[in-house]
Amino acid sequence: MQGAKTKVAILGFGTVGSSVARILLEGPAATELQLTHVFNRDVARKRASWVAHPATENPLVWTEDVEAILSSDVDIVVELAGGLDPAGSWVRRALEAGKSVVTANKKLIAVHGIALHRLARQHGAHLFFGAAVAGGIPVIPGLQQGLAGERVQRIEGILNGTCNYILSGMEAGGEYGPMLAEAQARGYAEADPTEDVGGFDARAKLVILSRLALRANVPLDAVRCRAITRLTAIDFDYARLLGCTVRQVSRAELGAAGEVTAMVGPMLVPLRSPLAWSRGTENMVLIGGEYGGDVVFSGYGAGGHPTAVAVVSDLLAIAHGSGAVELPSKEASVSSDLHLRHSVRFVVSDRPGIVAGIASALAREGVNIDALLQKPGHAKSSLPFVVTVEPCAGSALRRALAEVEQMDCLLEPPLEMEILESD
Amino acid sequence: MQGAKTKVAILGFGTVGSSVARILLEGPAATELQLTHVFNRDVARKRASWVAHPATENPLVWTEDVEAILSSDVDIVVELAGGLDPAGSWVRRALEAGKSVVTANKKLIAVHGIALHRLARQHGAHLFFGAAVAGGIPVIPGLQQGLAGERVQRIEGILNGTCNYILSGMEAGGEYGPMLAEAQARGYAEADPTEDVGGFDARAKLVILSRLALRANVPLDAVRCRAITRLTAIDFDYARLLGCTVRQVSRAELGAAGEVTAMVGPMLVPLRSPLAWSRGTENMVLIGGEYGGDVVFSGYGAGGHPTAVAVVSDLLAIAHGSGAVELPSKEASVSSDLHLRHSVRFVVSDRPGIVAGIASALAREGVNIDALLQKPGHAKSSLPFVVTVEPCAGSALRRALAEVEQMDCLLEPPLEMEILESD
Repeated sequence: MQGAKTKVAILGFGTVGSSVARILLEGPAATELQLTHVFNRDVARKRASWVAHPATENPLVWTEDVEAILSSDVDIVVELAGGLDPAGSWVRRALEAGKSVVTANKKLIAVHGIALHRLARQHGAHLFFGAAVAGGIPVIPGLQQGLAGERVQRIEGILNGTCNYILSGMEAGGEYGPMLAEAQARGYAEADPTEDVGGFDARAKLVILSRLALRANVPLDAVRCRAITRLTAIDFDYARLLGCTVRQVSRAELGAAGEVTAMVGPMLVPLRSPLAWSRGTENMVLIGGEYGGDVVFSGYGAGGHPTAVAVVSDLLAIAHGSGAVELPSKEASVSSDLHLRHSVRFVVSDRPGIVAGIASALAREGVNIDALLQKPGHAKSSLPFVVTVEPCAGSALRRALAEVEQMDCLLEPPLEMEILESD
Repeated sequence: MQGAKTKVAILGFGTVGSSVARILLEGPAATELQLTHVFNRDVARKRASWVAHPATENPLVWTEDVEAILSSDVDIVVELAGGLDPAGSWVRRALEAGKSVVTANKKLIAVHGIALHRLARQHGAHLFFGAAVAGGIPVIPGLQQGLAGERVQRIEGILNGTCNYILSGMEAGGEYGPMLAEAQARGYAEADPTEDVGGFDARAKLVILSRLALRANVPLDAVRCRAITRLTAIDFDYARLLGCTVRQVSRAELGAAGEVTAMVGPMLVPLRSPLAWSRGTENMVLIGGEYGGDVVFSGYGAGGHPTAVAVVSDLLAIAHGSGAVELPSKEASVSSDLHLRHSVRFVVSDRPGIVAGIASALAREGVNIDALLQKPGHAKSSLPFVVTVEPCAGSALRRALAEVEQMDCLLEPPLEMEILESD
């Protein structure tokens, strides 16, 4: 620690990469870590935008040649390129060369995390990924270090800042399209927002959390995702009637036999629940444990600086020889059949017999109606209403709804959402 | 890791100690950690109440002789006796014998933490104290691992579950005396509740957090404590008028020159702030960082099981060779002069000239009145009202109030509280 600084290379010099560089140069890590290499395509452009920074005093190598870094004396490689390829092969080769790796790449860790950890151990290197879930919120160190002794039974998270920005904006009166456009204008959402609004980004994070917290290996495509794209102001109106709001929730629960129920999608969240308190691009993770009850972490889950704090903290942990507590995880059978209350929103051209038709379809699948809500003020030609049902398997409900969809008075497919309980 | 289990002794077998034993025997640590010794005075009684547990299958030594443990081949000593003595000397001797120590002893760590860390390093041992602050909430690992790269500027915490139980109960309509009695009946408060309600318990935790988060060494007695004992239902009425509630807040902030402003006491917390969401014995810690913004941790800060989770997690970290990231902390000049808006509640026997007298005393100290609030329905012979003032140094306000106290119409000393801002 007192001798030479730990040498760090950054692969991928976008928003997060340049924040990492800034914190490495001016933050509490500056005395211990030295940024030596920056890799990016078209690196000259990146370098030009960096000129006025004190970094230029460093003997910093700017390169488009990743081989130059992998064969250098760099101690830790920070992988911020994202995606499975070529980032995955860079990470593998760095670990094989005995270099430790810090990555924010949730997809890579969700899909190949276990194999990469094995590789790291074989080569005496470390693999840290604190920035892969919930950016600046220390959920991963909190789980790996602080809750290692817990038996975690349940994870409920708001893991995608883009969806939370859109949905908390809709809660405040916005509509989906304009809120998405606003998120795109602010740089929170991509031109193609599918990864975020479809639930796929959050799903990769939920898979990582399930491994660390539930100690269960959950395959990515075993987790059902429901997009937030069909939500309208009406859904928030009805949510309020139920004492709830709507959030994109990533939920995983461990059953008595070690099976996992996991799902990502818009769900009704009681206004009393911490999950309802998240605003804008905030993230929140609730960890429910057998011994210690619920622990909640919240903060900014994305953005250059918060994510960079997680990366630099991982770098410091490696430099201080502070390995993660890695408890073994097991293969788990996975379903997305959350056994919860549900709400179903219908939009119909009103005529007699609709409710009877819905009720009998639900009854045939053993799903019990809890309440029927219909707010006044809508035209009969396009009438929204909501049916809430008692706790049931989502699959039974969906079978019933597939039948209901055959009714020609339905103007769009029913939209079902789980209703989370508050404690 | 694959070989012999790490041997653990527990010193102090009360609520937390027996929870630690239970989790060690049945939780995720059972394959790696072995409880070998339990020390307590009158240990036969403790042993008797433990009989039916599977622990008895273990070759477990129950002893009243701490020397037997310190001279044994135990790897890690868990100190749960509390207080400075004799716990401090046990911890020192364990470290000197090269044994690692896990402790929940906030006072010992607040007062002697730096020296004990030095001692641990000298003897190649570890000292972990994740349970000393906010029990089951992984704030300490979150700070040491997950926020090591952050520049933390501000800590705001609800660090005492007893006070939070009393104050959230008063928010719901209770009065101080009955709520304290209820807390005592439930085992949340001691017969002499001074440590909790006077702020001294929370202060030790704030000192520890300041060292880890602000990297500032704050002497315990440099931090002002104001008790919650004088609060009444009236204070919650007026808080609501201001869009706030009242919580015991522990707050420390780093100034531009490295100075620290720190204080513990009842403060007005905006209802929009996460701190207002804590209920019952919950704890909450807000860490405000330069790079990543605010991160909030919440959960159960006390009680046997949550505290034991933190202890067992520390044991696992040591067993896995996962040391804490220890960044150096500096001596800091400390004041308790929070420069914030304040509210002051007066109770007077009403007569002309009172407000004029208060206003001129405040004006002489350069304190500007913001608003005067007086709820109807109180008798003139015992009239409560509240004055809020613009941001000012607490010391200037207190000088002005010392002068106001000379007015013979005051039925009790004025009660001042800081008003925290919400973001």
